[in-house]
Amino acid sequence: MLTVALAKVFDMTFDPSTLRYNDAGLIPAIAQDATTGEVLMMAWMNAEAVARTLTTRSVTYWSRSRQEFWVKGATSGHTQKLVDFRVDCDRDCLLLKINQVGPACHTGRRSCFYTAIHDGNEVTLTAPMTD
Amino acid sequence: MLTVALAKVFDMTFDPSTLRYNDAGLIPAIAQDATTGEVLMMAWMNAEAVARTLTTRSVTYWSRSRQEFWVKGATSGHTQKLVDFRVDCDRDCLLLKINQVGPACHTGRRSCFYTAIHDGNEVTLTAPMTD
Repeated sequence: MLTVALAKVFDMTFDPSTLRYNDAGLIPAIAQDATTGEVLMMAWMNAEAVARTLTTRSVTYWSRSRQEFWVKGATSGHTQKLVDFRVDCDRDCLLLKINQVGPACHTGRRSCFYTAIHDGNEVTLTAPMTD
Repeated sequence: MLTVALAKVFDMTFDPSTLRYNDAGLIPAIAQDATTGEVLMMAWMNAEAVARTLTTRSVTYWSRSRQEFWVKGATSGHTQKLVDFRVDCDRDCLLLKINQVGPACHTGRRSCFYTAIHDGNEVTLTAPMTD
Protein backbone atom coordinates (compact mmCIF):
# COMPACT_ATOMS: atom_id res chain seq x y z
CA MET A 1 0.00 0.00 0.00
CA LEU A 2 1.45 3.31 -1.07
CA THR A 3 0.58 5.28 2.06
CA VAL A 4 2.34 2.95 4.49
CA ALA A 5 5.73 3.86 3.12
CA LEU A 6 5.15 7.59 2.94
CA ALA A 7 6.75 8.38 6.30
CA LYS A 8 9.93 6.63 5.21
CA VAL A 9 9.91 8.12 1.73
CA PHE A 10 9.52 11.61 3.13
CA ASP A 11 11.81 11.00 6.13
CA MET A 12 9.29 11.94 8.83
CA THR A 13 8.45 10.37 12.19
CA PHE A 14 4.84 11.45 11.63
CA ASP A 15 3.14 8.95 9.36
CA PRO A 16 0.36 10.43 7.18
CA SER A 17 -1.26 6.99 6.97
CA THR A 18 -2.18 7.28 10.68
CA LEU A 19 -4.74 9.97 9.83
CA ARG A 20 -8.35 8.95 9.23
CA TYR A 21 -9.43 9.27 5.61
CA ASN A 22 -12.92 8.87 4.15
CA ASP A 23 -13.91 6.07 1.79
CA ALA A 24 -12.29 7.98 -1.07
CA GLY A 25 -9.01 8.17 0.86
CA LEU A 26 -9.39 11.89 1.55
CA ILE A 27 -9.29 14.16 4.61
CA PRO A 28 -10.66 17.73 4.75
CA ALA A 29 -8.07 20.48 5.16
CA ILE A 30 -9.06 23.97 6.36
CA ALA A 31 -6.75 26.77 5.21
CA GLN A 32 -6.48 29.70 7.62
CA ASP A 33 -4.50 32.91 7.11
CA ALA A 34 -1.62 32.57 9.58
CA THR A 35 -1.55 36.31 10.23
CA THR A 36 -5.17 37.47 10.28
CA GLY A 37 -6.88 34.22 11.32
CA GLU A 38 -9.32 34.50 8.41
CA VAL A 39 -10.58 31.12 7.21
CA LEU A 40 -9.87 31.13 3.48
CA MET A 41 -11.03 27.79 2.08
CA MET A 42 -11.49 24.10 2.65
CA ALA A 43 -10.23 21.43 0.29
CA TRP A 44 -9.18 17.79 0.44
CA MET A 45 -5.91 15.88 0.76
CA ASN A 46 -4.94 12.26 0.40
CA ALA A 47 -2.02 10.80 2.37
CA GLU A 48 0.55 11.69 -0.26
CA ALA A 49 -0.76 15.28 -0.49
CA VAL A 50 -0.26 15.52 3.28
CA ALA A 51 3.30 14.28 2.93
CA ARG A 52 4.04 16.58 -0.01
CA THR A 53 2.63 19.58 1.87
CA LEU A 54 4.73 18.87 4.95
CA THR A 55 7.95 18.37 3.04
CA THR A 56 7.66 21.05 0.36
CA ARG A 57 5.75 23.59 2.55
CA SER A 58 3.75 24.39 -0.61
CA VAL A 59 0.17 23.44 0.21
CA THR A 60 -0.85 20.58 -2.06
CA TYR A 61 -4.41 19.30 -2.20
CA TRP A 62 -6.01 16.44 -4.10
CA SER A 63 -8.38 17.74 -6.76
CA ARG A 64 -11.53 15.63 -6.65
CA SER A 65 -12.75 17.00 -9.97
CA ARG A 66 -9.46 16.51 -11.83
CA GLN A 67 -8.30 13.49 -9.81
CA GLU A 68 -4.77 14.82 -9.53
CA PHE A 69 -2.48 16.60 -7.13
CA TRP A 70 -3.22 20.31 -6.94
CA VAL A 71 -0.30 22.48 -5.86
CA LYS A 72 -2.28 25.54 -4.85
CA GLY A 73 -1.24 28.51 -6.97
CA ALA A 74 0.92 26.54 -9.40
CA THR A 75 -1.10 27.95 -12.29
CA SER A 76 -2.61 31.13 -10.80
CA GLY A 77 0.36 32.24 -8.72
CA HIS A 78 -1.95 32.41 -5.68
CA THR A 79 0.23 30.11 -3.63
CA GLN A 80 -0.16 28.93 -0.06
CA LYS A 81 2.98 28.53 2.01
CA LEU A 82 2.61 26.32 5.05
CA VAL A 83 3.26 27.99 8.41
CA ASP A 84 1.73 25.43 10.77
CA PHE A 85 0.07 22.05 10.24
CA ARG A 86 -2.53 20.90 12.75
CA VAL A 87 -4.43 17.64 13.23
CA ASP A 88 -7.71 17.44 15.15
CA CYS A 89 -8.54 15.17 18.08
CA ASP A 90 -10.23 12.56 15.89
CA ARG A 91 -7.41 12.69 13.31
CA ASP A 92 -10.01 13.19 10.58
CA CYS A 93 -9.60 16.91 9.85
CA LEU A 94 -6.61 19.18 9.23
CA LEU A 95 -6.04 22.86 9.91
CA LEU A 96 -3.35 24.56 7.83
CA LYS A 97 -2.07 27.94 8.92
CA ILE A 98 -0.71 29.51 5.78
CA ASN A 99 0.63 32.57 4.06
CA GLN A 100 -1.68 33.22 1.11
CA VAL A 101 -0.60 35.17 -1.95
CA GLY A 102 -3.58 37.05 -3.43
CA PRO A 103 -7.05 35.49 -3.42
CA ALA A 104 -7.58 31.93 -2.17
CA CYS A 105 -10.93 31.64 -3.96
CA HIS A 106 -11.28 30.82 -7.66
CA THR A 107 -13.76 33.75 -7.87
CA GLY A 108 -10.91 36.14 -7.11
CA ARG A 109 -11.97 36.76 -3.52
CA ARG A 110 -9.62 36.47 -0.61
CA SER A 111 -11.82 33.83 1.08
CA CYS A 112 -14.29 31.32 -0.33
CA PHE A 113 -16.67 32.10 2.55
CA TYR A 114 -18.01 35.37 1.15
CA THR A 115 -21.69 34.47 1.35
CA ALA A 116 -23.56 34.95 4.61
CA ILE A 117 -27.07 34.08 5.67
CA HIS A 118 -28.49 37.15 7.40
CA ASP A 119 -32.08 37.04 8.66
CA GLY A 120 -32.72 34.03 6.46
CA ASN A 121 -31.43 35.67 3.26
CA GLU A 122 -28.22 35.15 1.31
CA VAL A 123 -25.90 38.15 1.28
CA THR A 124 -22.68 38.51 -0.71
CA LEU A 125 -20.15 40.18 1.57
CA THR A 126 -17.13 40.82 -0.62
CA ALA A 127 -16.26 41.51 -4.23
CA PRO A 128 -13.39 39.94 -6.15
CA MET A 129 -9.98 41.46 -5.40
CA THR A 130 -8.49 43.80 -7.95
CA ASP A 131 -4.79 43.65 -8.80
CA MET B 1 -38.39 14.93 0.23
CA LEU B 2 -38.01 16.44 3.67
CA THR B 3 -35.38 19.04 2.82
CA VAL B 4 -37.37 20.70 0.05
CA ALA B 5 -39.88 22.06 2.52
CA LEU B 6 -37.35 23.21 5.11
CA ALA B 7 -37.23 26.81 3.94
CA LYS B 8 -41.00 27.08 4.30
CA VAL B 9 -41.11 25.24 7.61
CA PHE B 10 -38.45 27.51 9.06
CA ASP B 11 -39.75 30.65 7.31
CA MET B 12 -36.54 31.53 5.49
CA THR B 13 -35.82 32.73 1.97
CA PHE B 14 -32.57 30.81 2.08
CA ASP B 15 -33.27 27.16 1.33
CA PRO B 16 -30.86 24.70 3.02
CA SER B 17 -31.58 22.15 0.30
CA THR B 18 -29.69 24.37 -2.17
CA LEU B 19 -26.41 23.51 -0.43
CA ARG B 20 -24.33 20.62 -1.75
CA TYR B 21 -24.30 17.60 0.53
CA ASN B 22 -22.21 14.44 0.24
CA ASP B 23 -23.65 11.00 -0.46
CA ALA B 24 -24.65 10.72 3.20
CA GLY B 25 -26.58 14.01 2.97
CA LEU B 26 -23.99 15.90 5.05
CA ILE B 27 -21.96 19.09 4.68
CA PRO B 28 -18.84 19.96 6.72
CA ALA B 29 -19.20 22.90 9.12
CA ILE B 30 -16.14 24.70 10.51
CA ALA B 31 -16.69 26.40 13.88
CA GLN B 32 -14.58 29.52 14.44
CA ASP B 33 -14.47 31.66 17.58
CA ALA B 34 -16.20 34.87 16.52
CA THR B 35 -13.99 36.99 18.77
CA THR B 36 -10.50 35.48 18.56
CA GLY B 37 -10.71 33.85 15.11
CA GLU B 38 -9.46 30.55 16.53
CA VAL B 39 -10.70 27.54 14.57
CA LEU B 40 -12.28 25.32 17.21
CA MET B 41 -13.64 22.22 15.46
CA MET B 42 -15.20 20.76 12.36
CA ALA B 43 -18.34 18.65 12.37
CA TRP B 44 -21.17 17.78 9.99
CA MET B 45 -24.69 19.01 9.33
CA ASN B 46 -27.57 17.75 7.29
CA ALA B 47 -30.12 20.14 5.77
CA GLU B 48 -32.35 20.12 8.83
CA ALA B 49 -29.39 20.77 11.15
CA VAL B 50 -28.60 23.80 8.99
CA ALA B 51 -32.18 25.04 9.34
CA ARG B 52 -32.27 24.37 13.09
CA THR B 53 -28.95 26.20 13.58
CA LEU B 54 -30.14 29.24 11.65
CA THR B 55 -33.46 29.50 13.43
CA THR B 56 -32.47 28.60 17.00
CA ARG B 57 -28.96 30.17 16.82
CA SER B 58 -27.82 27.17 18.90
CA VAL B 59 -25.33 25.33 16.71
CA THR B 60 -26.77 21.92 15.90
CA TYR B 61 -24.76 19.26 14.09
CA TRP B 62 -25.64 15.79 12.87
CA SER B 63 -23.80 13.14 14.86
CA ARG B 64 -22.49 10.55 12.44
CA SER B 65 -21.68 8.10 15.24
CA ARG B 66 -25.03 8.42 17.02
CA GLN B 67 -27.06 9.19 13.89
CA GLU B 68 -29.01 11.94 15.63
CA PHE B 69 -29.13 15.71 15.95
CA TRP B 70 -26.42 17.02 18.22
CA VAL B 71 -27.17 20.36 19.85
CA LYS B 72 -23.64 21.29 20.81
CA GLY B 73 -23.37 21.68 24.59
CA ALA B 74 -26.84 20.31 25.38
CA THR B 75 -25.26 17.75 27.70
CA SER B 76 -21.89 19.33 28.55
CA GLY B 77 -23.00 22.95 28.80
CA HIS B 78 -20.27 23.86 26.31
CA THR B 79 -22.69 25.54 23.94
CA GLN B 80 -22.07 27.32 20.66
CA LYS B 81 -24.16 30.38 19.89
CA LEU B 82 -24.27 31.36 16.25
CA VAL B 83 -22.92 34.82 15.41
CA ASP B 84 -22.52 34.50 11.64
CA PHE B 85 -23.27 31.74 9.15
CA ARG B 86 -21.19 31.54 5.97
CA VAL B 87 -21.41 29.40 2.84
CA ASP B 88 -18.43 28.83 0.55
CA CYS B 89 -18.25 29.44 -3.21
CA ASP B 90 -18.99 25.81 -4.08
CA ARG B 91 -21.82 25.64 -1.53
CA ASP B 92 -20.29 22.47 -0.10
CA CYS B 93 -18.72 23.80 3.09
CA LEU B 94 -19.96 26.02 5.94
CA LEU B 95 -18.14 28.42 8.25
CA LEU B 96 -19.86 29.20 11.54
CA LYS B 97 -18.65 32.16 13.57
CA ILE B 98 -19.72 31.39 17.10
CA ASN B 99 -19.50 32.25 20.75
CA GLN B 100 -18.15 29.15 22.49
CA VAL B 101 -18.74 28.46 26.17
CA GLY B 102 -15.77 26.55 27.64
CA PRO B 103 -13.96 23.92 25.59
CA ALA B 104 -15.18 22.98 22.12
CA CYS B 105 -13.23 19.70 22.15
CA HIS B 106 -14.42 16.54 23.90
CA THR B 107 -10.91 16.26 25.41
CA GLY B 108 -11.58 19.44 27.38
CA ARG B 109 -9.42 21.64 25.19
CA ARG B 110 -10.63 24.89 23.72
CA SER B 111 -9.90 23.71 20.15
CA CYS B 112 -9.78 20.23 18.62
CA PHE B 113 -6.70 21.26 16.64
CA TYR B 114 -4.20 20.94 19.49
CA THR B 115 -1.78 18.62 17.70
CA ALA B 116 0.86 20.08 15.40
CA ILE B 117 3.40 18.49 13.12
CA HIS B 118 6.70 20.22 13.75
CA ASP B 119 9.80 19.05 11.88
CA GLY B 120 7.99 15.84 11.01
CA ASN B 121 7.03 15.03 14.61
CA GLU B 122 3.68 15.22 16.41
CA VAL B 123 3.56 17.81 19.18
CA THR B 124 0.68 18.37 21.62
CA LEU B 125 0.30 22.13 21.99
CA THR B 126 -2.32 22.56 24.72
CA ALA B 127 -3.59 20.79 27.83
CA PRO B 128 -7.26 20.38 28.74
CA MET B 129 -8.85 23.47 30.27
CA THR B 130 -9.42 23.54 34.01
CA ASP B 131 -12.60 24.99 35.46
